[in-house]
Amino acid sequence: MKYCSECANPVELMVPAGDNRPRYVCTHCATVHYQNPKMVLGTIPVWERDGEVRVLLCRRAIEPRYGYWTLPAGFMENNETTADAAERETQEEAGANITLGPLFALLNVKHVHQVHMFYLATLRDLDFAPGEESLDVKMFTESEIPWDELAFPTIHTTLECFFADRARMLEGGSYGFHTQDITRPMRGDS
Amino acid sequence: MKYCSECANPVELMVPAGDNRPRYVCTHCATVHYQNPKMVLGTIPVWERDGEVRVLLCRRAIEPRYGYWTLPAGFMENNETTADAAERETQEEAGANITLGPLFALLNVKHVHQVHMFYLATLRDLDFAPGEESLDVKMFTESEIPWDELAFPTIHTTLECFFADRARMLEGGSYGFHTQDITRPMRGDS
Ligand SMILES: [Zn+2]
Ligand SMILES: [Zn+2]
Repeated sequence: MKYCSECANPVELMVPAGDNRPRYVCTHCATVHYQNPKMVLGTIPVWERDGEVRVLLCRRAIEPRYGYWTLPAGFMENNETTADAAERETQEEAGANITLGPLFALLNVKHVHQVHMFYLATLRDLDFAPGEESLDVKMFTESEIPWDELAFPTIHTTLECFFADRARMLEGGSYGFHTQDITRPMRGDS
Repeated sequence: MKYCSECANPVELMVPAGDNRPRYVCTHCATVHYQNPKMVLGTIPVWERDGEVRVLLCRRAIEPRYGYWTLPAGFMENNETTADAAERETQEEAGANITLGPLFALLNVKHVHQVHMFYLATLRDLDFAPGEESLDVKMFTESEIPWDELAFPTIHTTLECFFADRARMLEGGSYGFHTQDITRPMRGDS
């Protein structure tokens, strides 16, 4: 940020009176331009038949992490809820028809000013297809997950938590709600 | 937003190519200025002695909702986690020393482009005191809660969920994780 979005004069990075952090402050109209973390919303689309569980992943057609696999997810927009955003991204990136379940994971990615959230979701049919931001959309059993070709640490963590919960469910457990801080950096996760 | 924060030329509200929503786009450098929802983080500071549960509330010294009661909460900042933000706001507004518990509620307030989250917290001592943004800080039992003088619908909902869980805990239940969409408007909750 170089200029004030209200009056077009230059901004300066300074600590406003009564504050304790540097902010972009307009040198002319004194507007303080706050910057806040963003939410990334997605789903874990699940297809379960004959005791076999498959999860839908998308292969990214855009940077960062072109060609790597991800759960359908993207930035939450104004005028939608977290659930709206998760459903929209699943439709846009995977063309998938889902029934949304409960919130499954909330992951802080402090170093890129993001909070990632994933909802459980059930695929209603197999009529999915890659959207403009995906090269491919495919279902994977646990043993087929391309662990070394996942796009972001939050995808890795969410899938780990998901399959751990599934294993516990064989012994009568149920899905949990998972919160975690992601500190491992990964090329291109900004 | 009237001017581009990168080049100071006027912005126009338009749907960029390949997009489906109006955005502020620079007429000169073509930068698209996205606007995203913000997170508000807070705590439910609990003091429990001799089977009696009390919750700490702050009386707001700032607009909106000056003079009304709230749980300590405020906008999450860059370079902090949701838990960091909840602890910081509790310290800033109530001067309270807490041990943070699990995330308790996530509430969508779509019409003001906000997501509010509240963590459970245990007061470590009674050395709390109003910060600059509070007129007063006080503990309340369930029957003392000033339901008609609460600042925001999300405070109302979170306290309702909290005391409902407490009632269920008498019969062996435990705290849940609550998600809800807040649609009721309230004067000044923007
Ligand atoms: Zn200005
Ligand atoms: Zn520009």
